[in-house]
Amino acid sequence: MSRFYSKKDLIFQLFENQNVLNLTALPNFSDHSEDTFKLILDAAEQIATNSLYPIFREMDRQEPQLIDGLIRIHPGMKSIIQKFGQDGWVNAIFPYDEGGQQLPWTIHMAAGFIFQAANYSASVFPFLTTGAANLIRTFGSEQLKENYLPKMYSGNWQGTMALTEPDAGSSLSDLSTTAFPTDQPGVFKIRGQKIYISAGDHDACENIIHLMLARISGAPSGTKGISLFVVPKIRLDGKPNDVLTQGIYHKMGYKGAPIAHLMMGSQDDCEGYLVGEENLGLKYMFQMMNEARLGVGMNAVAIATAAFHASLTYAKERPQGRKANEKDLQKPQIPIIEHADVKRMLLVQKCITEGSLALLIYCGILSDKIAQESDKELKLKQETLLDFLTPIAKSYPSEMGVISTSHAVQVLGGAGYTTDFPVEQYFRESRIHPIHEGTTGIHGLDLLGRKVWMEDGLGWKLWLNEIQEGIGEAKRWSELIDLSTSFEKQLTTFIEASGQMFEKRKLGAEILLADASLFLEACGIVSIAWMWVKQAITAQEKLQNGTQETHFYLGKIEAFRYFISYELPKLTGIIQRFYASDFPTLTMEKEWF
Amino acid sequence: MSRFYSKKDLIFQLFENQNVLNLTALPNFSDHSEDTFKLILDAAEQIATNSLYPIFREMDRQEPQLIDGLIRIHPGMKSIIQKFGQDGWVNAIFPYDEGGQQLPWTIHMAAGFIFQAANYSASVFPFLTTGAANLIRTFGSEQLKENYLPKMYSGNWQGTMALTEPDAGSSLSDLSTTAFPTDQPGVFKIRGQKIYISAGDHDACENIIHLMLARISGAPSGTKGISLFVVPKIRLDGKPNDVLTQGIYHKMGYKGAPIAHLMMGSQDDCEGYLVGEENLGLKYMFQMMNEARLGVGMNAVAIATAAFHASLTYAKERPQGRKANEKDLQKPQIPIIEHADVKRMLLVQKCITEGSLALLIYCGILSDKIAQESDKELKLKQETLLDFLTPIAKSYPSEMGVISTSHAVQVLGGAGYTTDFPVEQYFRESRIHPIHEGTTGIHGLDLLGRKVWMEDGLGWKLWLNEIQEGIGEAKRWSELIDLSTSFEKQLTTFIEASGQMFEKRKLGAEILLADASLFLEACGIVSIAWMWVKQAITAQEKLQNGTQETHFYLGKIEAFRYFISYELPKLTGIIQRFYASDFPTLTMEKEWF
Repeated sequence: MSRFYSKKDLIFQLFENQNVLNLTALPNFSDHSEDTFKLILDAAEQIATNSLYPIFREMDRQEPQLIDGLIRIHPGMKSIIQKFGQDGWVNAIFPYDEGGQQLPWTIHMAAGFIFQAANYSASVFPFLTTGAANLIRTFGSEQLKENYLPKMYSGNWQGTMALTEPDAGSSLSDLSTTAFPTDQPGVFKIRGQKIYISAGDHDACENIIHLMLARISGAPSGTKGISLFVVPKIRLDGKPNDVLTQGIYHKMGYKGAPIAHLMMGSQDDCEGYLVGEENLGLKYMFQMMNEARLGVGMNAVAIATAAFHASLTYAKERPQGRKANEKDLQKPQIPIIEHADVKRMLLVQKCITEGSLALLIYCGILSDKIAQESDKELKLKQETLLDFLTPIAKSYPSEMGVISTSHAVQVLGGAGYTTDFPVEQYFRESRIHPIHEGTTGIHGLDLLGRKVWMEDGLGWKLWLNEIQEGIGEAKRWSELIDLSTSFEKQLTTFIEASGQMFEKRKLGAEILLADASLFLEACGIVSIAWMWVKQAITAQEKLQNGTQETHFYLGKIEAFRYFISYELPKLTGIIQRFYASDFPTLTMEKEWF
Repeated sequence: MSRFYSKKDLIFQLFENQNVLNLTALPNFSDHSEDTFKLILDAAEQIATNSLYPIFREMDRQEPQLIDGLIRIHPGMKSIIQKFGQDGWVNAIFPYDEGGQQLPWTIHMAAGFIFQAANYSASVFPFLTTGAANLIRTFGSEQLKENYLPKMYSGNWQGTMALTEPDAGSSLSDLSTTAFPTDQPGVFKIRGQKIYISAGDHDACENIIHLMLARISGAPSGTKGISLFVVPKIRLDGKPNDVLTQGIYHKMGYKGAPIAHLMMGSQDDCEGYLVGEENLGLKYMFQMMNEARLGVGMNAVAIATAAFHASLTYAKERPQGRKANEKDLQKPQIPIIEHADVKRMLLVQKCITEGSLALLIYCGILSDKIAQESDKELKLKQETLLDFLTPIAKSYPSEMGVISTSHAVQVLGGAGYTTDFPVEQYFRESRIHPIHEGTTGIHGLDLLGRKVWMEDGLGWKLWLNEIQEGIGEAKRWSELIDLSTSFEKQLTTFIEASGQMFEKRKLGAEILLADASLFLEACGIVSIAWMWVKQAITAQEKLQNGTQETHFYLGKIEAFRYFISYELPKLTGIIQRFYASDFPTLTMEKEWF
């Protein structure tokens, strides 16, 4: 049994709770089967267990260092990155004719979940290269593909996504890195700075290929004037490009992955190669963004999952105290998992992690279907639903991942605060996710400011339909009728309150969006409750049909009960704000703090 | 202006919101005045600013190390500890005839708040010595006082509290360190281990004086057989006592303070000197426990306050993005404090930190009054109320301190995750407080299992009376009537639900206590709402009477509005559990996870 995740649960989520095998009916996935999917997961577990997990804590303690302009990372990463390349993980989701395995993104993401749970920092390197390569293969010229993809796929070259600048973080439209045309078509001279670039420089690969956003000199301001470039650290002729590693960021966690501050063109000799058309860079980037954001959600779940299992193991082994009604001190102490409050802290973690994993797999399957959907109307529906779910599936796991890992620390008590156990590291690592790929605040604005209104509210309606359908199905089980009826009632209250919230649009964007983060939070809770309805139905079916693993399925039903009784009621507090007509976050003046 | 706290707010809390000067009417404090109190706070700020804050981050990066059996701490601590001693901070609260300044504990705690906000780790050393010395002076023999107190007061010797053992953490009654009588009366040979001993060994003092719990050989099991001993690292004759520093704990935060694993009697030569009577050790310890627990609450507030002010400063300076309704990208970016969601994250922090500070000062004043109260009935009332409030005033700031510092990190975004800014350190440091001096789970059991029922529910009743009185007063102000009426309504719902919760006592301790942590959480929210009512009334009075500082007081009213509109409604979700008749934390079997 693995120490950092439950294989049983991952298999449950993919094959029982959501039938991922349906994807094999799609033309591009027709070669795949339950066997090939499970082989992939086994292979991932093997790498995770044998290579990633053993250096997980070492990578935290031996942080990357910038020495003589080059970032040195943990020496173990070189063979790991090579193995990821050689075993085909970088291009696994790409088509056969591009050397890939046409693997559904969902299965690739599930394998990624195993890597991330074992060692989040290490998992980031190949993931970034896949993302960068995907931009080149989707939007780049044949020449760019030929020049860059093979060595990225093989793990020799690292890919990055270079967006953020000192003055352009959440406000990407303000970016000022500039590309100056040269005599050669498609070749530009880049000048500017990029900060917070993950894997932006390191010594485990021969080259670093930045997929960089910049504004072509004279292009319009704002998002409409941003173009995408390939900016290699070393040019094809072996000459260094003018990309300096200006600095390295030291961080609270996620320390194994180097985050660089890059300076381009200080010698006026940084070449960048235009990807696709001018001024479409942000559009290209955003076509990858949904998957990147779901990827962050998955990272958050993976870390919280590892923390959950570490605290679960400890709680089963650590004796301390006696039952509340046991007065005889001669009796031996009991394992702390027997205490109600410890069980509560474990149930919270189970609910957050397994509920979020279900949501991300749901989104993954939707994304895989969209890519091959020929029916226009159906495709629009699927896309709109996925667009709606993306900020939720990024933010709930990220925000609640911090809470979940905090519970893991608490289960261990004093031991959890020390570096003798891994939970404190999980807690530190989880804290990045509400920040990167769009902060929670930004996703709140995205959801309530855009996604709710897209296609005349189609996403919102489809989402509610799906949930109501799930509840309806659950109500057919006598064992689930009470809990699903309770969910239904709470959902109705939420829908009514949301209607009030939507009315505020008439009062302008400021007022509508003042509580956007709360709306996002509420949608997160509802979405996870929905995922628990789905899991409870599946578990009930299994129990009904007879299974060897009653414990596992009874645990699912009990966790469903926990979520409906403890987590879902948090809605009631949040939705009071939907009716509010006072706005302290608008009326509070900055001088009053 | 200080970077790590608001002096204006501390003065407001002490002198305006709660009239700390009333304490000078008590005989022991009659020499004190507004001037002497403010001088103390000024002196504290000076040490904090000049000595503590400058090495706050260094102490995190240069962790204590155990080398050749001795823990080496940051070299700057030696002069700081000496200064604390020389300036009279260790014994400030003790009587004149013992060399102290008869300072109210409230003022001492307020000065401690400044130290803790500047550098939590550094503040711990003198605080521990005060606690240990207080045990000796209250319960020890004249000989012990003479032998140990002077050098502890002067800062030459460090005091510690040595309770926890490998098998006795939350379950102190299981402790097994043993004291064997010798020929000399009061002198014992100690054998056993202690873990997690703060300042348990270091090189900045000449000696370490452990106030250690142990069981005299043959004493009863459980809490009734525990005695208290003075166990010095070096004996009075200069000979080392048999106390080995077996290990040092490396931790997520709070790194500047060394936490030791101690081994006593491995050469059968560890002398311990009995404090007071045999088998009363835990009782002695618990007489200090209220203040120690309030102290932890204050530590948590202080760290969260420093994080709040760091994020507030950043939010005022960092330009990013534009208002939701601003489309013109030619306009300059605005400071992020102008965004509603950033203001929300600052208001949360303001509410948590200033509300908690008010609660701790309230408890401090109560504690100071109790010590000099001659009216038996009144004293009983005050004691019972303080006993009731203590788990709340320890746990709310501790739990919410983690949330508050997490918001501070989020305000800074990516920058907040880096070590370039102090907020990530505050986040790591805050995480210890829900754990030490009794975990939140333990305090939940204490509140719902004991404190609610003490003196026939007197604490519960007094607490509610105080709150209702506050609401009644607020309702007299037209500016506060809506918010205080809203509070009143929510309070009524909470009281009704609590009545239901109390009914569960008939069903046995397990069922009553299954949701004790939720009850504690709810009482925390209600208590802080009450503190905001008090602050709002004071602010309204000031505004009414005319003041130069309208901004400050308007901010208090707006924060009150925020708390009632955003934080208090969380009650609604929690109290649904008070009515619940299903108990997933009891029915979930450990095998089902």
